[in-house]
Amino acid sequence: MRDQGVTVWLTGLSGAGKSTIATALTGELRRRGRAVEVLDGDVIRENLSKGLGFSKEDRDTNIRRIGFVAELLARHGVIVIVAAISPYREVRDEVRARVGDFVEVHVRCVLEELVRRDVKGLYHKALAGEITNFTGISDPYEEPLSPEVVIDTTDETLADSVARVIGALQRAGYLEEDLAA
Amino acid sequence: MRDQGVTVWLTGLSGAGKSTIATALTGELRRRGRAVEVLDGDVIRENLSKGLGFSKEDRDTNIRRIGFVAELLARHGVIVIVAAISPYREVRDEVRARVGDFVEVHVRCVLEELVRRDVKGLYHKALAGEITNFTGISDPYEEPLSPEVVIDTTDETLADSVARVIGALQRAGYLEEDLAA
Repeated sequence: MRDQGVTVWLTGLSGAGKSTIATALTGELRRRGRAVEVLDGDVIRENLSKGLGFSKEDRDTNIRRIGFVAELLARHGVIVIVAAISPYREVRDEVRARVGDFVEVHVRCVLEELVRRDVKGLYHKALAGEITNFTGISDPYEEPLSPEVVIDTTDETLADSVARVIGALQRAGYLEEDLAA
Repeated sequence: MRDQGVTVWLTGLSGAGKSTIATALTGELRRRGRAVEVLDGDVIRENLSKGLGFSKEDRDTNIRRIGFVAELLARHGVIVIVAAISPYREVRDEVRARVGDFVEVHVRCVLEELVRRDVKGLYHKALAGEITNFTGISDPYEEPLSPEVVIDTTDETLADSVARVIGALQRAGYLEEDLAA
């Protein structure tokens, strides 16, 4: 039987841990024999959306393009992990409706902690007004209202986060259950 | 064993028969049990390249985007059929180098015949100067120098065209040989 594809959509603020979770989840799913592809927001911008900026309209266009590619891959049995800030609820829901097989994962982290970590130095620049349209500081982030999974990386371990997404995929029938010990 | 993916790139003038061949080829490949996806130039423009025009630069960007998506699909075992005018040799070769598994099919038809058919009415408009940047009339088409397959739809049947692409895929090891009768 062909594997059932699905799009696992990680949404959340910059630095919250989307890419880290995507990488760990990819390893775990491949270990289980599944075909996986990660669509990273930055990589997609470089390859499919050069020229688009960070206005609501341009962000929405970028998200629709990610959704289009995710659907193409998922219908060939691939588990597609999207890691993109995707701050606007309406376009996320539009993509969900279009794609069909869709598991939304809200990757949360309190802003205070994101500013403290500031791995890419972006929050300090945004707070200093050197970057405009920065989600969470000078641009809105609309939290999902009923995501399949909520991860809070403020104090949750990566292993726990991955396990909870795996559990959600199993409950939704996209992944085989673990064998009883 | 996982099927080996490949990109079958149909290049040629508008109306030469790329989409017709893509559809027939899709049917034949699915009959053989293969996963197939068609990336049609017009559909990709609508979904990934809205806002791009028909300058050389914009056409090249569109072709690179198609190549990016084709590569993602092909590495999961899909036979990706691209049907796009793709008039510029350099960017086709760039995509070929990047994608790796690539079979170029030049879909030819003499211009006189294309103007006679003119299914979409575009050639007459282009000849009247009502459409600018029209490939073959007011914009260049650079023929492939060494495509794997050349199809001339001026007088070749669709079945013959499809059979020749199938043969090329078999010779290149992307498709199983037919069993001897």
